[in-house]
Amino acid sequence: MRLAELSERSGLPAATIKYYLREQLLSPGRRITATQAEYGDDHLRRLRLVRALIQVGKMPVATARQVLAAVEDESLDQNARLGAAVWALPQGQKPVEDDPATAVARREVELLMRRLDWKECLDAGEEAPAWGTLVVAVSALVRLGYPCDADDLAPYARAAAQLAVTDLDLVEGFHTPLEQVEAAVALTVLYEPVLLSLRRLAEAEESNRRFGTGD
Amino acid sequence: MRLAELSERSGLPAATIKYYLREQLLSPGRRITATQAEYGDDHLRRLRLVRALIQVGKMPVATARQVLAAVEDESLDQNARLGAAVWALPQGQKPVEDDPATAVARREVELLMRRLDWKECLDAGEEAPAWGTLVVAVSALVRLGYPCDADDLAPYARAAAQLAVTDLDLVEGFHTPLEQVEAAVALTVLYEPVLLSLRRLAEAEESNRRFGTGD
Repeated sequence: MRLAELSERSGLPAATIKYYLREQLLSPGRRITATQAEYGDDHLRRLRLVRALIQVGKMPVATARQVLAAVEDESLDQNARLGAAVWALPQGQKPVEDDPATAVARREVELLMRRLDWKECLDAGEEAPAWGTLVVAVSALVRLGYPCDADDLAPYARAAAQLAVTDLDLVEGFHTPLEQVEAAVALTVLYEPVLLSLRRLAEAEESNRRFGTGD
Repeated sequence: MRLAELSERSGLPAATIKYYLREQLLSPGRRITATQAEYGDDHLRRLRLVRALIQVGKMPVATARQVLAAVEDESLDQNARLGAAVWALPQGQKPVEDDPATAVARREVELLMRRLDWKECLDAGEEAPAWGTLVVAVSALVRLGYPCDADDLAPYARAAAQLAVTDLDLVEGFHTPLEQVEAAVALTVLYEPVLLSLRRLAEAEESNRRFGTGD
């Protein structure tokens, strides 16, 4: 298809697509004349992922480029590729401070991971960006004196394990290995606001169950 | 305690506390001389919540003030107060567009809520800010053609219901009704990055379980 059709089918203005091409978020089409190129379904699919990262995930272009590079890295096996692509997603800050609260958080997170026997995570430790984000989040709880030891965190981790099964079920619904990696990245990002808003709605239900007057 | 002690015990510079006082995020101390005021444990606790909202939750001061007003509203019963305070937390955008994707998302969210029989949420509908956020998040999935009908969303909702039980268990560990409302707000905000980073770690485990080479 030509650029005009790619624009129509993706719902993106041609100018936006040209910008993504210049920024190397989308590979060039197959040149057919000096001024025209031909695009395929892979371009359409890639645009969908770029929109998920940039328009919904609010990622800077440079970060999205890194994520896409990980998605495309065919030198890795499927597990490593999925892992690398999700790990390339932007995270909260890394634990920089070396204060007592961070030390406590590091200990509780490690204890939690050992109890759950999350081997992949234990192998990577703070090399896994999400481990660092978790330490920062837990150290904020420590600093403010809210409950956050390994026992408090365990039910959240069990819910996360269950969510990951659902996530990977959705991913396995896609056919090719590349589509699966793309879906893993997109669904990780796109389902975050779904999950957080469902949690707030569920809190309202649970609060009513416990404290409601029944009217 | 005097301002100096409040500063030391809260870990916040005196200048920051004075700023929060000026911005009415913290109620004034009891005046004891023309230049000195006395602060209590309630001030210390309130500072902890303000830090959770502003420093960790990155909320604008005006938004934090609205949340705190809801926390303090003693005209409501405990359930309404918990609900109002959590609802006052900032959310993603509201669904503004009236496009086909938003219409599909509205339908699927309503179908999901009916199936789950989440009565509080069904009563409020899009009046509940999290309902609007959910519609926006789902409409992004619809627009990009990713799976997001009521069946796809149901396992996320079930996990959210389980998380809400854990959240409210933590909240009920606090003693007074005011402390519980404060904790509900703080824990809703502070556990969001905990949950999202645990999900990414759990995805790595699950992906390894399914696609790993076992080495």
